[in-house]
Order: sequence, then C-alpha cells, then structure tokens
Amino acid sequence: MKEFLWHIRVYYEDTDCGGVVYHTQYLNFMERARTEMLRSVGFEQDELLEKENVIFAVRSLSVDYLKPSRFNDLLRISNSIRHLGHASMTFDQSVIRHSDDSLLCKAEVRIACLHSDTLLPCPIPENIRREFNHAD
Amino acid sequence: MKEFLWHIRVYYEDTDCGGVVYHTQYLNFMERARTEMLRSVGFEQDELLEKENVIFAVRSLSVDYLKPSRFNDLLRISNSIRHLGHASMTFDQSVIRHSDDSLLCKAEVRIACLHSDTLLPCPIPENIRREFNHAD
Amino acid sequence: MKEFLWHIRVYYEDTDCGGVVYHTQYLNFMERARTEMLRSVGFEQDELLEKENVIFAVRSLSVDYLKPSRFNDLLRISNSIRHLGHASMTFDQSVIRHSDDSLLCKAEVRIACLHSDTLLPCPIPENIRREFNHAD
Amino acid sequence: MKEFLWHIRVYYEDTDCGGVVYHTQYLNFMERARTEMLRSVGFEQDELLEKENVIFAVRSLSVDYLKPSRFNDLLRISNSIRHLGHASMTFDQSVIRHSDDSLLCKAEVRIACLHSDTLLPCPIPENIRREFNHAD
Repeated sequence: MKEFLWHIRVYYEDTDCGGVVYHTQYLNFMERARTEMLRSVGFEQDELLEKENVIFAVRSLSVDYLKPSRFNDLLRISNSIRHLGHASMTFDQSVIRHSDDSLLCKAEVRIACLHSDTLLPCPIPENIRREFNHAD
Repeated sequence: MKEFLWHIRVYYEDTDCGGVVYHTQYLNFMERARTEMLRSVGFEQDELLEKENVIFAVRSLSVDYLKPSRFNDLLRISNSIRHLGHASMTFDQSVIRHSDDSLLCKAEVRIACLHSDTLLPCPIPENIRREFNHAD
Repeated sequence: MKEFLWHIRVYYEDTDCGGVVYHTQYLNFMERARTEMLRSVGFEQDELLEKENVIFAVRSLSVDYLKPSRFNDLLRISNSIRHLGHASMTFDQSVIRHSDDSLLCKAEVRIACLHSDTLLPCPIPENIRREFNHAD
Repeated sequence: MKEFLWHIRVYYEDTDCGGVVYHTQYLNFMERARTEMLRSVGFEQDELLEKENVIFAVRSLSVDYLKPSRFNDLLRISNSIRHLGHASMTFDQSVIRHSDDSLLCKAEVRIACLHSDTLLPCPIPENIRREFNHAD
C-alpha cells in the first residue's frame, strides 16, 4: 500500500470559538486514519491486543499547520508509511480540504510497538510488517 | 456536606464555532466536579477501585441549558447530593458564571456504584455513605 | 422521514480508562447524527446561518445509559423527530451496537431555533418544517 | 519571567482505554498553560482580540512522549519562551508528574500572532513583547 486515504467530516465539536478546527483535533483525525489504515489491510487493534499482546503508542510527532478548516468541511487524510522499523514505524500524514484540495496540515508521527504487559518495545508482528513492506 | 463548589476556567478547547462553550463540555465539567467532591471528603477513585473493587458510572442524566458561556469565563460548579441510595446516588449540579452569578445550566445526574469485575450494581462503600449522610 | 440512521466507529479518543466509551461522547455522536439528518434532507447548517441567519442550539436533554461500548465497536445512531414545534424540535435518539443490535443508550434532545444576531428564539425555516412534516 | 508553572489534574475524560492519558490531551493541557502564562503577566486573550484585533494561532509543534500518566495524576506544566520573534514566539513546554517529578512529555510549540480580520501575520503587541523580554 503506497497511500491510504480516509475522509472525515468536521462537526461542531471539532471547532473552537476562533471559528476554525481546534489545532489538536487534527491529531485525533490522524489517529482515526491510522486505525482505518490498519483495518484496511486486515488488522484490528483490539484483536492484536488480545491475540498478540501488542499495542501501538505514539512516541513522537511533529505537525505544521498551514491553513484553517471550518465546520462542515469534508477532509481527506492522506497516510503513508515513511519508515518501517523493527519495533516502530513512522507515518507521513496530511489533511487536505476535499472541496479544493488545499493542504491544511501535515505531520510525521512515530509509533512504537509495545508489549501490552510490560509496555516495553517489542517487534512489530510479522504479518503487519509483511503487509506494509508490500508498500515499497 | 450540604454543597460543594468547584471552579473551572473555560479554555479554547471548550468552545465551538458558535463562539460559546460546546454543550457536552458542561457535562465534562460536572464530572470533574464530582471527582473533586469525592476527593474533598477523602475518597480517591483510583484507590476505591484498587481497594474496594468499586467504580462509579453515570446511569442517567438530564440537563437544561439556560445561558451560554464563553472563552475565558470562570465557572463555578455547585454540587449537592439529592438522593443517597443503596447502590446509587443522584447529584444536583449547576454551572454558574462566577463574574455575575448567572445560572448557565443545571443537571440531575444519577451515578451507579458497580463492582469492577462484574460491572453489576453493588452497595456504596459504608464510609462514603457515612460521609455523605452527614450532609443531611 | 420516519427514522434516520447514521453509523459511527468508536476510536481510542472516545474511550476512557474504564475501558469503555466516555459517557459524554455519546452526546457528541448524537450531535453528529443530527447534523447528518439535516444534511440528508438538503440542509447545511453553515448555509442556514449564512442565508437565513438561523442557528440551532441544544436547550435540554435527558439520556439513559444502558450498556457500555468499547474501542472499535461500530455504532448505529437512530434518530427521529418526536415533536416539531414553532421554534423548537425534539429528537428521539438512540445508540445501538451494530454487531448485536444491543441498545446502549437513548436520549431525548430538545433543540431551539435561534436568530444568529439576537440569539432569541425564531421560527424554524418553513422549508425545514415542510421536509420534517412529511415524516408524519 | 524565566519559567511559568501551571498544575493540571487528570480526569476520566483525559484518559483512553489503554489506561493512560490520550496523547493529544497533553497538547490541550499545554494550550491551557500558555493561556495562563499570558494571564499571569496581565494579558487576557479575549481583550487582546477586542482591543488590539490580535489572535494567536499554533503554527507548528513537535512533541516527544516519554512516560504515560494516569487518572488522578497531578501534572505540572513547565513553560518558557525559547524565542520571541517579530510576529511569532516559540514555547518550550514540558509535562511533569508532580508526585515523583517524572518528565512525561516535552514539546516545542510555535505560535503566530495574526490580525483577527485578515488572519495575516502581524507584530506581537509591544506590551507583550516588553513583558516577555524581561525574561532574558
């Protein structure tokens, strides 16, 4: 998979009194999109936890805010994997206004794979690695 | 304890593009206030879970929205226990703008006491009951 | 329209450390569903504001929480209009777990129609009234 | 002002089903702390908007997540200004668990000063600049 797209609608709850989407809300949208990207290739995070004792946690992120969006905008989240490590992966994610293809914000998000009991880093399950390596 | 007061400041994250506090956010403020009311008489919910296997869950609520509030307002949450049952309690809660004592919204919130393993109703711990009965 | 259905997926952001969806989050889901119900019959709230100077605000709500839901659950929000008044309308809304049709929570939500400048009650626009009266 | 400290309590709404504070919530805490830092030297953002037509917007941020925190933790947000530009300022912010002084996450947040009508960059008001230059 080279790029995974996910659409999200802006509701009242996502906006602030500046009239635009609140800045941290884009990061929630990106987390939804990563969940759906995993689902799109057959991985459900509740099953990963139950069967493989594995959870994913955000280790670091950086984001640039370029343009605002507003109530009722339809957003398109673009997601790709920049780097697939042994126990972590790095996503490139951007948020685009669907109506005019404006780039609103872009982020780099590093996710660690952790053992659910110890919360220590552990290898990304082989089947996930295999799926995402096909991306290249 | 007849009435417990807790102050909360409105931040950007609490508002929506209508320029006012988003309607469900008042219910989050009320949950914070209930947590602080319990703390004020010596009960920490993480300890209640660990030592007594007890959690509290919202069973029902009704709320009337009377006036809006805005970014930077200081709010005062007024909390009292209307009814202390065997396995549930009902709070009367209201949100007041501190600067002019305007009543912004008022709610009745019924909380159930649940056993943390079974999630079935269980008696409110005796020490909590004793503390809140002093209220009468 | 007798009943409008809208599906919502539960993400991490919607849950709390009790392992279930946080109680106020259901009310956000219901607001999203009301927005989509209006959209489904051709009304965009940003256009209503711009062209008719009309906004909708929650005046009161009551909700019963019956069963919990969890991360990754697909929820179905059922929405119908119980009462269509001159300047307000009352929705019956319920949240159902899609996989097993469990009823998770149900609410009655009263919405006021307000003039955007004065924030005073004003008549629901005639075209909306006409659309929803077809429901009967 | 070299460093501004602000304390925030973790409530249920801040946690997720992993049992810890949801990763974007720390960024909301940091926004609250920046608001309080401005207030502590006499600047209210609603007055800045009204009197000087100036708003602050997050332009970029990067954050490292080092350790988790949990329900009921008391957090201390440390805030300092790393760089004070003509139309933007960069904050160093970190979140520390108050009970054991563990560093939980640290961030660099760049804020732009915008004219509220045009949303174009504008100079930081001179009185704010003067106040924060005293920091050096």
